[in-house]
Amino acid sequence: MERLDPQTCRARQARLMAAVPADLLILNNPHHILYLTGLYNSELRQAAWGLNSLLLDASSGRATLLVNEMLAHELSAPAVDAIQVTPWYAAAPAGPGAEQFDEAVTALRGRVEAIQPPRIAAELGWLPQGAVGGEAVLNLNPILKQMRRVKDADELRLIREAVRVNEAAHRGARAAVQVGATELEVYNAACAAAVSAFGGPVHLLGDFTCLSRPNPGSVPTPYTLQPGDVMLCDIFPLVNGYRADFTATIAVDDRYSEAQDRVDGAIHEALRAGEAALRPGARGGDVYRVVRAALAQHGLAEHFPHHAGHGLGFDHPDTPYFVPLSEETLLTGEVVALEPGAYGPGFGARIEHNYLITEGGPERLSNHSTALL
Amino acid sequence: MERLDPQTCRARQARLMAAVPADLLILNNPHHILYLTGLYNSELRQAAWGLNSLLLDASSGRATLLVNEMLAHELSAPAVDAIQVTPWYAAAPAGPGAEQFDEAVTALRGRVEAIQPPRIAAELGWLPQGAVGGEAVLNLNPILKQMRRVKDADELRLIREAVRVNEAAHRGARAAVQVGATELEVYNAACAAAVSAFGGPVHLLGDFTCLSRPNPGSVPTPYTLQPGDVMLCDIFPLVNGYRADFTATIAVDDRYSEAQDRVDGAIHEALRAGEAALRPGARGGDVYRVVRAALAQHGLAEHFPHHAGHGLGFDHPDTPYFVPLSEETLLTGEVVALEPGAYGPGFGARIEHNYLITEGGPERLSNHSTALL
Repeated sequence: MERLDPQTCRARQARLMAAVPADLLILNNPHHILYLTGLYNSELRQAAWGLNSLLLDASSGRATLLVNEMLAHELSAPAVDAIQVTPWYAAAPAGPGAEQFDEAVTALRGRVEAIQPPRIAAELGWLPQGAVGGEAVLNLNPILKQMRRVKDADELRLIREAVRVNEAAHRGARAAVQVGATELEVYNAACAAAVSAFGGPVHLLGDFTCLSRPNPGSVPTPYTLQPGDVMLCDIFPLVNGYRADFTATIAVDDRYSEAQDRVDGAIHEALRAGEAALRPGARGGDVYRVVRAALAQHGLAEHFPHHAGHGLGFDHPDTPYFVPLSEETLLTGEVVALEPGAYGPGFGARIEHNYLITEGGPERLSNHSTALL
Repeated sequence: MERLDPQTCRARQARLMAAVPADLLILNNPHHILYLTGLYNSELRQAAWGLNSLLLDASSGRATLLVNEMLAHELSAPAVDAIQVTPWYAAAPAGPGAEQFDEAVTALRGRVEAIQPPRIAAELGWLPQGAVGGEAVLNLNPILKQMRRVKDADELRLIREAVRVNEAAHRGARAAVQVGATELEVYNAACAAAVSAFGGPVHLLGDFTCLSRPNPGSVPTPYTLQPGDVMLCDIFPLVNGYRADFTATIAVDDRYSEAQDRVDGAIHEALRAGEAALRPGARGGDVYRVVRAALAQHGLAEHFPHHAGHGLGFDHPDTPYFVPLSEETLLTGEVVALEPGAYGPGFGARIEHNYLITEGGPERLSNHSTALL
């Protein structure tokens, strides 16, 4: 299992504390705790999800974790100064961990109140904290969001691992797409391939749907693939907390329509046009327009209802966005997805690749097949 | 897909507001939002996990949801009075949903400050809120934990559905256990069977490990099953947010040892002894002692290192606990797991079933095979 680098985690802590005029920073978002300490609270295990805290003391630079004991052993290298463990359950009348966590939080309150005047920073939104008498509390989210855009080397290593697992998932899905299979069977094949490639359980999200069936959705169903169907596989696994996200649209057999063939050509052209626009300094809105213009040349602009792509990291969605009014400019070191699509009567397709933005242009990270057949 | 009943959700809101001396109740825990409104934020999708809020206005009884737009359509029946939707992303310079959520929270702050004197209740622990100037904030967690112990009819319906899906997962796992298969292949077979039985993606957690291999763990690995191995399958899927959790230990072929045979008999005896103790009013510590005593009769007490079971609902762990010092008494309408096990040199096994506590005793909910072969 790949891990974030403890020294780089420490450097990120220092960068965050330097950017924030606060004495104490309190973090609860599991993604931010991963980013700053390397502690991974798997989406599949969710040990006390939302109940673990990271405290950063800006005056001393000390980092303290308050974590559930099911997570404590996950911290293989100490990227914090102290770990306070809440038990999974206590063999005592005091009861389970959640209550003891309440006690730890109450103790923390005393500590916070001792700071005069209070200069506290927290993730507004992860906590009604922001809602209740929170004037003294600085919102960490915009700062962290900006920091998280440019990926460090240890993050890129994890994203490349997620890409590798997702490529296996795509191979598994493509092999399973055939007349008589169900959408669920294609989904199961993708999951099994991802688990085998990773060597352990994977949190696999995705859109798995036959675009040609009545009421295409996003979640796979027991629908049985028919001759002439095309199936969308937009797969986004979380691997060690980091996400890859890429798409193929696959014909179930040889019998796709002329309209389907045309849209397939058009989205591949649109992808290439988008790739050419992925330069540091490019505006998100301009990337969107380049993709849309390529589709417009094939009369498909009105059949392209969504964004042209987005940033990648822990979350979905993540900045930047390739949407009409986006003024965000691309940064060297960002990782993004491009995903042109077109959907209409008798056709429907989307393809998607992932890229690292470099000085010289985009480095494509994903190498799955986007072929219709 | 099964859903909680909107009228019963409303009744739970009313019960909670009646139990809490506060004007405004703020909830962020996705499980509590599900419990009180029926809105299901799937662990597999995690749409703005931790960023959605439920506000309960005790004076008017009004319920307002602040949710990400990826969730809004999940609320099939209106168990709230108003829904404020945060966009997934905005096609505008203002940027993505998280920022707009911050704005919604800031607006909420204004509303809270208008209440004089402030009487606010929130889930301490889900929020550093409790840590920062929170004297005026009442902790909702103990109240909700007590409420959640006794299951309503709509919850029991969902738990029975989770049990059904888990029975399929167990059948899939058992069929896959054979010499030459890997632990990962058994895991994949359990997942695929759960997905097929449910008809959609399932958040499947579990311990999948050969107890006879060096360093048995909990997460499945590429280890290949050998003649004489026994494999533990402790499977706990989350289905519509509710959990089932039961276990079998399966011999890979006919060649298990005499010690393994003896421990298998002992844990089945211990399970039956535990079942006889599952009466309303029984203390958790007493249930533990009954199970341990049955194992002691076979000289296995020292090989039983963990609890004898626990409550079931959304979370893991969930009260009550069958641990030595537990003074909690069982309530009619609770759902619990019993799980005796013994682990030592040359043997290792655990079995587990789920039960509804009724006036007349336990109703066993799970019907999977716990046979060694």
